[in-house]
Amino acid sequence: MIVPLADLGDPRLADYQRLRDVGLRRSLEAEHGLFIAESEKVIRRAVAAGYEARSFLMAERWLVGLRDLIEDSDAPAFVLPQEQVEQVAGFPIHRGALASMRRKPPTTVAEVTAKARRILVIEDVVDHTNVGIIFRSAAALGIDAIVLSPRCADPLYRRAVKVSMGAVFALPYARLTDWYQGLAELRATGFRLLALTPAADATALEDETVDPAHRLALLLGTEGDGLSSHWLDEADRAVRIPMAAGIDSLNVAAAAAVACYLLGNLRTPG
Amino acid sequence: MIVPLADLGDPRLADYQRLRDVGLRRSLEAEHGLFIAESEKVIRRAVAAGYEARSFLMAERWLVGLRDLIEDSDAPAFVLPQEQVEQVAGFPIHRGALASMRRKPPTTVAEVTAKARRILVIEDVVDHTNVGIIFRSAAALGIDAIVLSPRCADPLYRRAVKVSMGAVFALPYARLTDWYQGLAELRATGFRLLALTPAADATALEDETVDPAHRLALLLGTEGDGLSSHWLDEADRAVRIPMAAGIDSLNVAAAAAVACYLLGNLRTPG
Repeated sequence: MIVPLADLGDPRLADYQRLRDVGLRRSLEAEHGLFIAESEKVIRRAVAAGYEARSFLMAERWLVGLRDLIEDSDAPAFVLPQEQVEQVAGFPIHRGALASMRRKPPTTVAEVTAKARRILVIEDVVDHTNVGIIFRSAAALGIDAIVLSPRCADPLYRRAVKVSMGAVFALPYARLTDWYQGLAELRATGFRLLALTPAADATALEDETVDPAHRLALLLGTEGDGLSSHWLDEADRAVRIPMAAGIDSLNVAAAAAVACYLLGNLRTPG
Repeated sequence: MIVPLADLGDPRLADYQRLRDVGLRRSLEAEHGLFIAESEKVIRRAVAAGYEARSFLMAERWLVGLRDLIEDSDAPAFVLPQEQVEQVAGFPIHRGALASMRRKPPTTVAEVTAKARRILVIEDVVDHTNVGIIFRSAAALGIDAIVLSPRCADPLYRRAVKVSMGAVFALPYARLTDWYQGLAELRATGFRLLALTPAADATALEDETVDPAHRLALLLGTEGDGLSSHWLDEADRAVRIPMAAGIDSLNVAAAAAVACYLLGNLRTPG
C-alpha cells in the first residue's frame, strides 16, 4: 500500500541510503538481511521468485507499472518526487522504481548441486557487473547452478542484480564455506572439475568429450590473475578457449559466456 | 621527462580533470583530441600501437614501471602524491598511472574493412564497459575489424579502453557516417550481413554455413532493444544463439563473445 512520508528522515527509508557506497551497503544489507531490486522488470522477477518486499520507493510515474504488485503486498510503498528519491539514494536513478527485498536463508552447496549436471564454480570474482553478466549467461546457456568461493562478490548486490536482469533469482547458487577444501568436496559428489585458463598447454574446451553420466563443474577465476594455483591443482583438467595469437585473455564474463555455450555442446566420447 | 608542478591549477593538468564526469569528458576529449589511458599495461599498449602521449600523471610508486617509456617521450610526466592525483581526477585511482594520449585522425569504414573477412557492426551500444568487453573478445576471437554506428559509445573513452585491456588499440575500427545507408554500403563491398537477434525464428548461428569466399559482418544491437528494425531488414540473415526456455536474451557483451567464437568456427556448405 502507498504510505505517506512526513520527511526524508523517516527510518523506513534507511534501506535505500547511499546506494553507491559499497562499504556501507555491504554492512547495511547484511545487518538487515535485505537487497535492492531496481526497475519494474527486475522487481517483478524477484517477487515471482518468492522474495518478499520490505518496501518500495519510486517517483510517481513508475507507480502505474507496479500498482498490482504493490496492492498485493503488505510492504509500504513510498512515492516521492524524483529529486527526493535521488536525494535518498545518493545518485541519479534512471531506471525507475526501487524495492528493498528480504533475503532468503542461505542455501548450502549440497542443496543447490544435488540435482545439477552442469555447474559453474567462481573463484573470487569481485566485480558486481561481471558476477551479474555471468549469472545471466549461465541461466541462458543451460547451467543448472552456481557455486561461489567465500570471497566472490555478492550476487544480490544491486548492480549484480540489475546486470543479471534477475537471473540471480532464477539460478540456484550457494557459497563455499571452505575455499581450500571446497573443490575436493564437490569432486566427492561426482563432479568432474574443468579449470578454465588461458594457458597454452590446456586442452581446447571444444575438444573435450563428456560421458553423459558425468557431472561437470567449470571453474572460473578472478578478473586479474585467474584461478589460484590451489584450484588449478585440484581440477581434473585444464581447459582453454582458443584465442588469436598475442592475446592473453578474455574478460572473465566473456570467457564465461563462451564456456557455458561450449559446455552445453560437448561431444560424447568415441 | 619528469616535470615539477607549482600547483594543481597548472593548465597542463586539465586533461585529467573530473574523469568520472562523462559529459565533461566527452566535450573536453573531443575538443583537444585526447583520450586517457590507465595502468602501466594499457599505457604501454597505446604507445606500442603508435599513440603519442601528451603527458603522464602518476603517484611516485608507479614511476619505476614506466621510467623507460617516460624517458623516451617528449611529453611531460607529472609525479604527485596519490591524494593530489585523485584530487585532480576526482575519484580514487587504484590501478596506477594515467596518460593523456593524442587521438589519431579517424579512419574510414572503407579503410578498416578493405582487407577484413570477419567484422562486427555495432549499433548504438552506449555502455562503455560493454564496448570495451566487445573489443577485447573480438580481438581474442579472430575478428578483423569493428564498425560502429554513429551513436555507439566511444571506444577510446577511459572505461572502454581499460575494460578492453587495450584491444581498442589493436583492432581497427571506424564509425559509419550514415546510420541509414551504412549497411547497404557494406553489403556492396561484399559483406554478407548476419543480424544477431534473440528472435525464436532466426537460424541458430552454429547451423549457418559459410562459403570461404564470403566476407561476413555480424550486426549487434543495443543493450535494451537490440537491433533497430531497419538494420534487421537490411540484414541478409537473422541468426541467434540458442538459449534455455524462458530466458529472453544475453547481455550484449556476452552475446558478442559467443557470436565471435561461433563466427570463427562456421562450417563450409555441403
